[in-house]
Amino acid sequence: MRTPRISNAIIKRLPVYRRYLGQLQRQGVKKISSNELSAIIGFTASQIRQDLNTFGEFGQQGYGYSVDYLFGKVNEILGLDREYKTVVIGAGNIGKAIANYTYYYKIGFNIIGIFDANPAVIGTECNDVIVQDIEGLREFVEANNVDVGVICVNRENAQAVADLLVDAGVSGIWNFAPIDLEIPKSVALESVHLSDGLHTLSFKMKSISESK
Amino acid sequence: MRTPRISNAIIKRLPVYRRYLGQLQRQGVKKISSNELSAIIGFTASQIRQDLNTFGEFGQQGYGYSVDYLFGKVNEILGLDREYKTVVIGAGNIGKAIANYTYYYKIGFNIIGIFDANPAVIGTECNDVIVQDIEGLREFVEANNVDVGVICVNRENAQAVADLLVDAGVSGIWNFAPIDLEIPKSVALESVHLSDGLHTLSFKMKSISESK
Repeated sequence: MRTPRISNAIIKRLPVYRRYLGQLQRQGVKKISSNELSAIIGFTASQIRQDLNTFGEFGQQGYGYSVDYLFGKVNEILGLDREYKTVVIGAGNIGKAIANYTYYYKIGFNIIGIFDANPAVIGTECNDVIVQDIEGLREFVEANNVDVGVICVNRENAQAVADLLVDAGVSGIWNFAPIDLEIPKSVALESVHLSDGLHTLSFKMKSISESK
Repeated sequence: MRTPRISNAIIKRLPVYRRYLGQLQRQGVKKISSNELSAIIGFTASQIRQDLNTFGEFGQQGYGYSVDYLFGKVNEILGLDREYKTVVIGAGNIGKAIANYTYYYKIGFNIIGIFDANPAVIGTECNDVIVQDIEGLREFVEANNVDVGVICVNRENAQAVADLLVDAGVSGIWNFAPIDLEIPKSVALESVHLSDGLHTLSFKMKSISESK
């Protein structure tokens, strides 16, 4: 399916639809209305209908959506109907956590290489993948047509690693370093800012405490 | 400052303002207009003015905002003008990564306890904090008036840990387990769904590849 032009807001909501639809599948639910989805997800029913209509006709008025069909379609829209060759740079706690996560939940991002600059870490194993010297990163990415690089190094080294990954030809970067990377528009970038979530949490705590 | 009722959308944008203002501070920038902020952050200038006006008068038309003052105000709004006693449950890679992150970046969430059920991990150290047996979690939270629990256990155990934290009296839960926790409204909850970011990334990669 070719993707229509859609807003950043929908792009952020699509993974949320996928997550809840996956939960419904695991619970054995077959059909769901936009009102029922709304009650679970928290978006309004009209928002949900509007979002899904952006991509085609997935349900019939009054009959609801097939959970399996919709889950498959959302996967397709998100580009999750294929696998991505992925490398992790930085074999510290975050790097290993990501490698374990993608391995354990089998989410289509296959970690085929892990790289680090620390001699004490090079040669150790993580889910049957041996940590390699970062000196070999560029050659590995080029030789294996790696799709995605996951940056788990510190703030100081993150931009240099990103530049190298871009030069070597990756299509996407998933960044965990607390820095805003500069990346050409031809490469997709998604950054996880852990502090944002923590600050949202403190805001919510403050609001609850003031309302008591 | 008492917090006015504000939308979820602003709550998500506030940490972004804080992050960029912190960067500007580190770069030594003293004054910034809403147009300049817009160019850096990517929200429209009118959106920025509207967001900040929700909380008071922080700038003067045509003169821009003082970066230091605005950073301080955003911190205050977010409830970051105090410290939070925090415990981490689950001393695996994610738990250790979070403990390191909060320790290294000194962001006001002080990890005073780390807990795990695995005898091989209990007694080990992480940034001078000794990993304790999860059996002692409730007593520790109650005795130390812990504010925040960070859940870094697997999907299967996350709800039980959350229930225990709520019973023991925490005000907030930062959840890394891939599950939607059920928490009373009196406790703040913020969940990090790693898969959401990865799915947004695959969507962006697909969109870029189709536009080529």
